[in-house]
Amino acid sequence: MCALVARHPAMELAFATANSRAGERVRVGGRELTLLATDDARLDQAELIFSALPHGASAQWVAAAHGAGAKVIDLSNDLRPGNGAQAALASYGRVPYGLTELKRDEVAGASVVANPGCYPTAMLIALAPLLARGLVVPGATVNVSAASGVTGAGASPKPELLFAEVAEDFRAYAVGNEHRHLNETRAVVRELGGDVDILFTPHLLPVARGILATITVPVVERVSNPLSLWREMYAGEPFVEVSETMPSLRDVVHRNVVRVSAVQAAGVRQPTLIVIAAIDNLVKGAAGQAVQNGNVLFGFEETTGLPA
Amino acid sequence: MCALVARHPAMELAFATANSRAGERVRVGGRELTLLATDDARLDQAELIFSALPHGASAQWVAAAHGAGAKVIDLSNDLRPGNGAQAALASYGRVPYGLTELKRDEVAGASVVANPGCYPTAMLIALAPLLARGLVVPGATVNVSAASGVTGAGASPKPELLFAEVAEDFRAYAVGNEHRHLNETRAVVRELGGDVDILFTPHLLPVARGILATITVPVVERVSNPLSLWREMYAGEPFVEVSETMPSLRDVVHRNVVRVSAVQAAGVRQPTLIVIAAIDNLVKGAAGQAVQNGNVLFGFEETTGLPA
Amino acid sequence: MCALVARHPAMELAFATANSRAGERVRVGGRELTLLATDDARLDQAELIFSALPHGASAQWVAAAHGAGAKVIDLSNDLRPGNGAQAALASYGRVPYGLTELKRDEVAGASVVANPGCYPTAMLIALAPLLARGLVVPGATVNVSAASGVTGAGASPKPELLFAEVAEDFRAYAVGNEHRHLNETRAVVRELGGDVDILFTPHLLPVARGILATITVPVVERVSNPLSLWREMYAGEPFVEVSETMPSLRDVVHRNVVRVSAVQAAGVRQPTLIVIAAIDNLVKGAAGQAVQNGNVLFGFEETTGLPA
Amino acid sequence: MCALVARHPAMELAFATANSRAGERVRVGGRELTLLATDDARLDQAELIFSALPHGASAQWVAAAHGAGAKVIDLSNDLRPGNGAQAALASYGRVPYGLTELKRDEVAGASVVANPGCYPTAMLIALAPLLARGLVVPGATVNVSAASGVTGAGASPKPELLFAEVAEDFRAYAVGNEHRHLNETRAVVRELGGDVDILFTPHLLPVARGILATITVPVVERVSNPLSLWREMYAGEPFVEVSETMPSLRDVVHRNVVRVSAVQAAGVRQPTLIVIAAIDNLVKGAAGQAVQNGNVLFGFEETTGLPA
Repeated sequence: MCALVARHPAMELAFATANSRAGERVRVGGRELTLLATDDARLDQAELIFSALPHGASAQWVAAAHGAGAKVIDLSNDLRPGNGAQAALASYGRVPYGLTELKRDEVAGASVVANPGCYPTAMLIALAPLLARGLVVPGATVNVSAASGVTGAGASPKPELLFAEVAEDFRAYAVGNEHRHLNETRAVVRELGGDVDILFTPHLLPVARGILATITVPVVERVSNPLSLWREMYAGEPFVEVSETMPSLRDVVHRNVVRVSAVQAAGVRQPTLIVIAAIDNLVKGAAGQAVQNGNVLFGFEETTGLPA
Repeated sequence: MCALVARHPAMELAFATANSRAGERVRVGGRELTLLATDDARLDQAELIFSALPHGASAQWVAAAHGAGAKVIDLSNDLRPGNGAQAALASYGRVPYGLTELKRDEVAGASVVANPGCYPTAMLIALAPLLARGLVVPGATVNVSAASGVTGAGASPKPELLFAEVAEDFRAYAVGNEHRHLNETRAVVRELGGDVDILFTPHLLPVARGILATITVPVVERVSNPLSLWREMYAGEPFVEVSETMPSLRDVVHRNVVRVSAVQAAGVRQPTLIVIAAIDNLVKGAAGQAVQNGNVLFGFEETTGLPA
Repeated sequence: MCALVARHPAMELAFATANSRAGERVRVGGRELTLLATDDARLDQAELIFSALPHGASAQWVAAAHGAGAKVIDLSNDLRPGNGAQAALASYGRVPYGLTELKRDEVAGASVVANPGCYPTAMLIALAPLLARGLVVPGATVNVSAASGVTGAGASPKPELLFAEVAEDFRAYAVGNEHRHLNETRAVVRELGGDVDILFTPHLLPVARGILATITVPVVERVSNPLSLWREMYAGEPFVEVSETMPSLRDVVHRNVVRVSAVQAAGVRQPTLIVIAAIDNLVKGAAGQAVQNGNVLFGFEETTGLPA
Repeated sequence: MCALVARHPAMELAFATANSRAGERVRVGGRELTLLATDDARLDQAELIFSALPHGASAQWVAAAHGAGAKVIDLSNDLRPGNGAQAALASYGRVPYGLTELKRDEVAGASVVANPGCYPTAMLIALAPLLARGLVVPGATVNVSAASGVTGAGASPKPELLFAEVAEDFRAYAVGNEHRHLNETRAVVRELGGDVDILFTPHLLPVARGILATITVPVVERVSNPLSLWREMYAGEPFVEVSETMPSLRDVVHRNVVRVSAVQAAGVRQPTLIVIAAIDNLVKGAAGQAVQNGNVLFGFEETTGLPA
């Protein structure tokens, strides 16, 4: 997050906080700065705050930053749809869900933005064209099998994230449709008009970064040229790539893009599309999309400072 | 394959062939031997032939070995159900599909056995209890998202299997339900009484070995204690492990087991089970299961010489 | 350690302790047991104690176990030569350094054994034939550049051992000849008659296990057939492999061996041997060698229960 | 190479050749082009040719390009010092060895430049300050233990570079001081005034890219502040980083830098410096340095188009 802001030609990094490393000198984007404790941050020194505090702790700091007059982009779960906090947020006006490609206009006029989770970014960009056209079978289950690199699990040193545990292994987690990102995904799917259930099984990959989501969608009729659906909806979007070859992590890491492809499934009676979407969980799935939203909030060219 | 045979207390390795390495001295299981060209093999010197020739080339060599009086276990696609060669095989009597846990009795009396593919082994062991009880919704699509280590793609030096290509990447392949293992899977599913479609998307993992299959199955009613289905069907089976925790590659590599777990999916209207199965593609998915079938063919204790 | 003991045909696992996991049920070698707090261990129930407590904490527990009448193999640094504790140990009689191939006779008669460190095991087995014959240039520096998998750094979740930190990286550590294993290495080199300095630079590899040591040794004369030196010294040793091809980690992981090779360096005026040694840090570098010493202590065949 | 040229603000990519992929459309740096067979290249269309042909095949094509009037940067071994081809090159005038930091002035006036090998770049940048000051013990052996990611071995699909062979392994190669990069290293060391022998042992790392060289140098006297030697020699150099912490691959990959650190060795009688240098073998070790030399040849700012 800091590196992207520090290198952004139209932003200046006023301060960075990290409670566990307060006082430490760090080098970001070619300049040195001292990390602050969160409580020591001079919120009134910034026009824009990116809050990447832990889920649960972020909401109150967003309130403080907003009270100090800053615009805020919150990278936590707290203010995203489906998490029950929407009512409490009436004071901010509406808090748009910052999936920029779908919510650009709402973001532009907001003072607080809820930046999406990494998995939902991949899933929702992939599903939106099908939902928008009413192609998904009503009442059906959309199956999402996704895999993430280890940075998706945060940077704290948990035993299960040690090299010797992760290398040469692969496992599912939150099995049974229990992942905390499901609430926001379902809420946005509903908003997009879909009467569908999401069945989501994430897996942990032995790679540092990247998410690949393999999505099977029962559709109401065979689609002869499926890619055209994404090409039309995302025409002109700088950060959505529609690809004839299947996306892989290598195509997207260190880049602020969602790369997506789709084919019709052979050999099944129920017409079904297989949609594959890849993102870098740390860029389009987090900090990159936050900067993209910051660009929209302040009227900068949307690609400013972002690695496409 | 050679190592397992060489270490098997009731088998003796008569010869090993490898056309591209004919003449090479190799050390397997503590003894040295010289690799032969396939044509130089003295088929009449062996009571049991394991044929791991490429798909397409294997069938004729199986015929030659059978003609020479040996029993044969064929690790290629050629004689597996669904691949169209069954008629031609009338001369062998029946050629059972050597998914040992499901076909033990047929294997015991056979002279030629079609050893299953790696993905089908994981899928079919996982699905059999649900199919046997008629729990899968008739006409429904069973979704299988699976991932395999690179040895699943063979040992020839293809550019896409180089370390620099595979490391830190993850990608789907044969997308659109096009994998060549689907024929045998569908044929056996039908045989097990399932009127279901299989939608199978494999992925390439940056690990050397192991397969994890994540299977979502629409079921006719909620199942309160899903694991009991596998526990009952596989009671006493030495090579099927039913686990409360989700299996991972680490649990199974270098072992001749299928490890399986299952949970009911929350938050979806259609009752659905999520079943996860893991195997080592080189052991239970290939050579280990071949030895297991060899043990059955010759009346040895089924676990003889196998790493459980 | 527990798995090796549990599977050892002549040993029975009386108990296992792990303070941080006391009370946990674990499965080792096919049976279940409950982990104990160290203080709850019934030392008088065992004839042999393997102490793998942290460096510094182990010595006193070794004393307690010895007082309770058990023989003890200590896997910590505490009692190894060069670490200053030798005097305090007079009460145990001599505490041999359990590099079994070099100290078999001393181990056989001991009641307490100091099991060697992983790096010193590789280095000393590699250097012993040259030191024994007086081939190393007196006063010279022997240069050791070694690399270890991450399990060499212990199992506690340090941030620098996370997958995302280790993967795709390689770094030296303890640079400047500061590694804590140098004391025992130097002490044993002196004991073997070498008037040489050791310059040791370890590195952290992105692999789970294994150590490779690349050792350059200035020698007093050219050696025409260097491998014969190791072949003669280790003739009949089941756990030392002298190899014409250069050893790699793959040759030794999960095995209780040191694999070693050597060649004369071309293009340098000072005659120099390059010796390469590989071990599994968790087997021959720790638990495997401890069991090997246990076999010697109790008069079992030395290979009993060990994966060669 | 193509990507760097395509993105270079002062260069324009005229054509790219690749015999094995001739006719293929590729996308580099945001534009599409068709790969040519080498023989189809219009050499007279370019002012600067980067030749990355195989060792042995490059020299004649360099001659052709030079004859067509282009300046040439040759990335092969062929024209580097110590490889015997210097005499044949009299017609080009001098062919400087393009280790830019050491040879900037010679490169500026040349028409043909021999771009250095990856290992020599790391070694020579690391050793130059010691050689320049006469600090290395005359006649001594400088020991270099280096490790490279797999892209250092080229992109052709050799079996030993498959993921399943490289992952979880580590091995030395060209052991015995036999690596083909030694000639150029020795020639340049001599040129820099060093009467020393180089003993070089490379290793293959399970990473995609990066080289780490760990170099031990017997010095004529203790050096109290070793880093100052590199800081002084490379003051103002944009692509040499002198670091107090030991460099690791992570510090340098995808960047056109050599990162170097050094400490005095403790516990050895012979005063010795341990110098550690890291580079990206594909950038500062190949294409990046070639572009750096191209910038010098044409009088562009030396950092133009290069990722620092």
